[in-house]
Amino acid sequence: MSTHTLSLLVENRHGALSRVANLFSSRGYNISSLTVAETDDPTVSRMTIVVGGDEDVIEQVIKQLNRLIDVIKVVDFIEEPVLARELALVTVDATRATRNEISQLGLMFGAKVASVAPSSVTLELTSTSDTIDEFVAMVKPYGLKEMVRSGKVALAKARK
Amino acid sequence: MSTHTLSLLVENRHGALSRVANLFSSRGYNISSLTVAETDDPTVSRMTIVVGGDEDVIEQVIKQLNRLIDVIKVVDFIEEPVLARELALVTVDATRATRNEISQLGLMFGAKVASVAPSSVTLELTSTSDTIDEFVAMVKPYGLKEMVRSGKVALAKARK
Repeated sequence: MSTHTLSLLVENRHGALSRVANLFSSRGYNISSLTVAETDDPTVSRMTIVVGGDEDVIEQVIKQLNRLIDVIKVVDFIEEPVLARELALVTVDATRATRNEISQLGLMFGAKVASVAPSSVTLELTSTSDTIDEFVAMVKPYGLKEMVRSGKVALAKARK
Repeated sequence: MSTHTLSLLVENRHGALSRVANLFSSRGYNISSLTVAETDDPTVSRMTIVVGGDEDVIEQVIKQLNRLIDVIKVVDFIEEPVLARELALVTVDATRATRNEISQLGLMFGAKVASVAPSSVTLELTSTSDTIDEFVAMVKPYGLKEMVRSGKVALAKARK
């Protein structure tokens, strides 16, 4: 059992996301995160999907994805160098006494203060998914009010 | 016709993403972007969905979403102050002659250099979706090799 990051180029046809999501759910595959947004070409979107499963299962998924009419290309990033990032917005309880400490902690992770209110601070962090996990663990003791994560986005690294 | 950003808390049940995606596709609604990832509670995920449609249509979508067994809560951010960000990784053609210029242009937008190769540079930018559009338009003349966007993620702003 391992975690794979799949990058899909799909045609922006009506119902394309449904067909991809149904393929995973009908076979019982577990999606940890999924992002889909348009590329530079408005007729094509790129999906990044993080999915767990053993090698045989993932191989099957990729075969099935390639058979979908909407799918132009599938890349499994376990096979090549990848540049992966995730974005998180995290709102933490903050008082006059803790606000500065929280913002300093954020700085250590490279987070920016995105919004400040009398009883909370919202931090914005783009990093690897592992670092976001660590960051969330560190701010949690202050009181996690709300959080949204984008899920992983990934591109192949250019070969040197 | 306007663009709405919906934030959904959903239970991590098997097939939840499918059910949400099918609701949109079966009614012909056009999703511009969708992100889904776990929250701090691993049994609950948060989806951010950007969808176009007139007021009546969106109202219907929200009603239907609230009827899905997986959906805990739906927020339409047209009704309250929102903090919205998007992440993009953009790989641009770059030579010894243009590399510095591209990285300086990135800096003006607050982009970081995420990877450098002999003939390309990958920039990482977290900003509003509009600013990412502007950034992409500015780097396009250098030659856009590859791009991935997370789609919008959003949180309600704490009320002052």
